[in-house]
Amino acid sequence: MADAALFELPLRVYYEDTDLGGVVYYANYLKFMERTRTEWLRSFGLENRSLLMESGLILVVTRCEIEYRRAARMDDLLTVTVQSAQARRVSAKLVQKIFRESELLVEATIEIACIEAATHRIKPLPELITHRINQGSLRDAATNQ
Amino acid sequence: MADAALFELPLRVYYEDTDLGGVVYYANYLKFMERTRTEWLRSFGLENRSLLMESGLILVVTRCEIEYRRAARMDDLLTVTVQSAQARRVSAKLVQKIFRESELLVEATIEIACIEAATHRIKPLPELITHRINQGSLRDAATNQ
Amino acid sequence: MADAALFELPLRVYYEDTDLGGVVYYANYLKFMERTRTEWLRSFGLENRSLLMESGLILVVTRCEIEYRRAARMDDLLTVTVQSAQARRVSAKLVQKIFRESELLVEATIEIACIEAATHRIKPLPELITHRINQGSLRDAATNQ
Amino acid sequence: MADAALFELPLRVYYEDTDLGGVVYYANYLKFMERTRTEWLRSFGLENRSLLMESGLILVVTRCEIEYRRAARMDDLLTVTVQSAQARRVSAKLVQKIFRESELLVEATIEIACIEAATHRIKPLPELITHRINQGSLRDAATNQ
Repeated sequence: MADAALFELPLRVYYEDTDLGGVVYYANYLKFMERTRTEWLRSFGLENRSLLMESGLILVVTRCEIEYRRAARMDDLLTVTVQSAQARRVSAKLVQKIFRESELLVEATIEIACIEAATHRIKPLPELITHRINQGSLRDAATNQ
Repeated sequence: MADAALFELPLRVYYEDTDLGGVVYYANYLKFMERTRTEWLRSFGLENRSLLMESGLILVVTRCEIEYRRAARMDDLLTVTVQSAQARRVSAKLVQKIFRESELLVEATIEIACIEAATHRIKPLPELITHRINQGSLRDAATNQ
Repeated sequence: MADAALFELPLRVYYEDTDLGGVVYYANYLKFMERTRTEWLRSFGLENRSLLMESGLILVVTRCEIEYRRAARMDDLLTVTVQSAQARRVSAKLVQKIFRESELLVEATIEIACIEAATHRIKPLPELITHRINQGSLRDAATNQ
Repeated sequence: MADAALFELPLRVYYEDTDLGGVVYYANYLKFMERTRTEWLRSFGLENRSLLMESGLILVVTRCEIEYRRAARMDDLLTVTVQSAQARRVSAKLVQKIFRESELLVEATIEIACIEAATHRIKPLPELITHRINQGSLRDAATNQ
């Protein structure tokens, strides 16, 4: 469904996600995307709580562009992807998509950075992230040839 | 962990669930319990959206007693159960629990009823529910002897 | 509307609060009640963030009984009250109600306690709270004679 | 604070809005913006529930670009604005900002459209909206000379 996705998470839509329009409330798609980023990080060994407890660091979203194409509804089974990722020293840019089977519902570009929880100062992204993303990009580049 | 639970759902705690206390916000445990009831219903063939679309009916919570023993934290993997259930014609009472491994975090007794979406009038619970609950209770009674 | 309420907060229902049933999602009434407790505390000089930053303490809910009588809908203007409060050394019990004009929608009894954020150990409630509640109760008793 | 804002709504940050980072969870700023759009619509006589009940129409967000500059924290008193708006026949583009006193925290460009709830088909925006936005733009243009 999602060609060359770096990561995929299946997610079910529940009552809490919907609004009186009968569809998922627009802010809640950002929750689905964050759950997916969290599981993607966990898939290569990075847990948010450990990052905070051990290094005093938190990953934050600094910018988000999101396009709502079609609505997800109660009981839908969705697939949320991290479609691609590019990392620099202090920020990374991820493309995330939400599908219902092969149908693209929502698409977003999300920029993340890392801050020190105590001071809110920007810090370099953990190497585990930049290393993984750059590896992934190289592998993608190789695959696409 | 959960002796004789009618149903269990594993759930991960994400950022969206926590508050500045570093633990899950107290209202969000009710979301976890509703997701579990929804999956329990689905496990014997009842989908909320179909119930609304085909019969114009919605299951609602009419009463809830919830005891918060210990807090769940970011990244915790929880098990949410439907521990027992009793059904009458127009309402059912469920006991639901939330565990982190063998540790009981939250326990609730939840009463549900069924209303007509258009009028908000109480209707008898769908037979699929009362039948299933009464079957389960019989089986539990047999098991417990 | 709410006889002898210790505190009242007007609240509007927004899209985010509703679900596909067209009414407020059952967990969200607990959010309305917490907003009201927070404003009630602020009304006599206690701010949650200061409590955490200066004393390392957090108020938590340890138990909640909630009865859903009627549903609130999109665009409703609600009044949420702290109807009465009783304090002991380590816990307090509040009765909170949600009204739409004179109509009682939701009623809850909520027990709160105070924990140390770092250790999650129960601590005595801040004197500002117990003092205020006990004063209020005395005044109520006098008023009711 | 917000020059020539079309509309302003004061909003308090509560526990429910924060996450374990101690600041407002990134998706929740979209809730603040929707509350403000809803009150802005109400200020010239358009209520979402009436729009749905009487015309079967729902306003939806089709696209959102949001920039997170600084974090809002528990107990902050924020001002959320509709800073400017442009309407065409089937969509409108709004700029919304969130301030803590004079400090700009979050800025977003939001595109809305109108759909028929039953079919999810795009419909022309209600004239009350396009008329009001175009009036506002003319008045702004006049003011800026």
